[in-house]
Amino acid sequence: MPDTLTETLVCPTPLQVRDRIVLGHGSGGRLSAELLRDVFLPLFSNPVLDRMDDQAMLEIGGARVAFTTDSFVVQPLFFPGGDIGSLAVHGTVNDLAMGGARPLFLSAGFILEEGFPMEALRRIASSMAEAAAAAGVLIVTGDTKVVERGKGDGLFINTTGIGIVPDGVRLSASQARPGDRVILSGPIGDHGIAILCKREGLEFETEILSDSAALHNLVAAILAASSGTNSIRCLRDPTRGGVSSALNEIAAQSGVSIQIEETCVPVREEVRGACELLGLDPLYVANEGKLLAFVAPEVADEILAAMRRDPHGSAAAIIGTVGNESAGLVTMRTAFGSTRIVDMLAGEQLPRIC
Amino acid sequence: MPDTLTETLVCPTPLQVRDRIVLGHGSGGRLSAELLRDVFLPLFSNPVLDRMDDQAMLEIGGARVAFTTDSFVVQPLFFPGGDIGSLAVHGTVNDLAMGGARPLFLSAGFILEEGFPMEALRRIASSMAEAAAAAGVLIVTGDTKVVERGKGDGLFINTTGIGIVPDGVRLSASQARPGDRVILSGPIGDHGIAILCKREGLEFETEILSDSAALHNLVAAILAASSGTNSIRCLRDPTRGGVSSALNEIAAQSGVSIQIEETCVPVREEVRGACELLGLDPLYVANEGKLLAFVAPEVADEILAAMRRDPHGSAAAIIGTVGNESAGLVTMRTAFGSTRIVDMLAGEQLPRIC
Repeated sequence: MPDTLTETLVCPTPLQVRDRIVLGHGSGGRLSAELLRDVFLPLFSNPVLDRMDDQAMLEIGGARVAFTTDSFVVQPLFFPGGDIGSLAVHGTVNDLAMGGARPLFLSAGFILEEGFPMEALRRIASSMAEAAAAAGVLIVTGDTKVVERGKGDGLFINTTGIGIVPDGVRLSASQARPGDRVILSGPIGDHGIAILCKREGLEFETEILSDSAALHNLVAAILAASSGTNSIRCLRDPTRGGVSSALNEIAAQSGVSIQIEETCVPVREEVRGACELLGLDPLYVANEGKLLAFVAPEVADEILAAMRRDPHGSAAAIIGTVGNESAGLVTMRTAFGSTRIVDMLAGEQLPRIC
Repeated sequence: MPDTLTETLVCPTPLQVRDRIVLGHGSGGRLSAELLRDVFLPLFSNPVLDRMDDQAMLEIGGARVAFTTDSFVVQPLFFPGGDIGSLAVHGTVNDLAMGGARPLFLSAGFILEEGFPMEALRRIASSMAEAAAAAGVLIVTGDTKVVERGKGDGLFINTTGIGIVPDGVRLSASQARPGDRVILSGPIGDHGIAILCKREGLEFETEILSDSAALHNLVAAILAASSGTNSIRCLRDPTRGGVSSALNEIAAQSGVSIQIEETCVPVREEVRGACELLGLDPLYVANEGKLLAFVAPEVADEILAAMRRDPHGSAAAIIGTVGNESAGLVTMRTAFGSTRIVDMLAGEQLPRIC
């Protein structure tokens, strides 16, 4: 079997039905979407799941409850700016927050490999505890399994979260409308490049740190700045698959087109440099502390200002507009004035980024 | 390092502080309890977690919500009587049911190994879907990660569940009282022995099937038979670590002693035979479709009758009584009339049983 990258380059589309799992099925890009569409959705279909947001919305005891799960398999376990423990908390807190929910409770499931150092487990659990306390969530239930040496990879963590959605807040990837503005909360690519540099032993003048962070306060600021209106359509954290995959998902689910401006997309100099060196496009690189907000045009400036007052949104920028050309089409006007299609991640660029 | 079994035999207690994870940390027995006590609980401590039941009890929107997580790493993935997919649904449904909750929603997190056959994934997902439908729960959110060949073991599944606890139902492992009767819902050891036989290629005249099943209806029957009283103290499914570990946990948390009668504990002939052949004690072998009910003496017969009317409780039996000798002590009167201590599982008897 050709490796994933070759495959991607040789036959980017259509991707054949595969008879075995490839790394790209975990990319958050097109193969992940295919796996969901071809295997899981037809079997598990129900009205809650079929909404295809990053969190399920449940009605429980008169409250609207957001519920979301994520497994973390990042390598290395410790990286500049974080570790698998803090990442496992931030990732799930953010998936709740993107549904407009106030994150409240997490479960933690550990799959440990025999021989894993107890001291590393302690550090990771401490990091989870700190991240949870900082985000105001409680880890209320857990589970630990151990597999034989060679049957795992140190440790994997699943976190599943519960949050409550305030009255009046209704966010969904299917709500973007022509004219909406697309706001990005800050520079992209930090997490993916930090992981890659650590993994490959690459060093730059300035160390690149993961942006891993809990965004619940930033989301609260956005919702507060727009109170009483339906002007916030959708929030999404562009993790695996990067900004490009998140935009493509929203364009497809809302049946709209999206155009972004390359010159408006914030990217740190050192990240841009690393991407050029490594042949990567920052639009496809994972983030763990950024969000995309789709908002009505009349509130865009106000929301942008509110975001910039939050430490995690200080470099926020309006990067694009929703249109009504071909449904699902995402394009970018480049720095040179030309327009190119921004497709979903097709294969796998950086496996095990989260 | 000596292997876990040798260690257990040589120095069953006290187990030294270990600097590396061993298989026994995933056993559900004493090492699991130590890991929880020494690493996770001090870091994650909060009033919900510290109750140490198999499910967290949360107050959400005026409702009492049960929340529980489990990762499944069973090998082989397909076994007589079930597979990892149905097991992942039954396990979490049962942890909710043991809290008295009506199971409602599940998340599903998959960690796949590169090269895993798509057809096997489809079979497993189908089995999950069927088990969920049969148990009346919806799989409402999910996540898929892929790790490189050799860094996983086919697939691991995490399921995390949400259920609602009816008014008036309060079950906890800390509520057993002297005089309570201990009811076991049916014969023990089926799951562990089915897995072991499949794994080792052992064949007996009658194939031993896993008892993997959802017990929410059995629990509903128990609760219905006791309506309006606090006569049901605690329910627990004796999975990893077997009946012995479950009894020890409840005895310790309730500060009571428990005495069981060997002749009253149901064990199928073929399971007993396999255990004798393999040198295993059925009290330490995992079950995935059985429960222990601690009930007030005056309702024991009524509850027993109600359990026997449910297909998953047709062979239920009263196996013991709660006493007020040393807190945490579990003893068994053997078939020969002598009494022996029934300790927690100390090392690891059957790794990756669930």
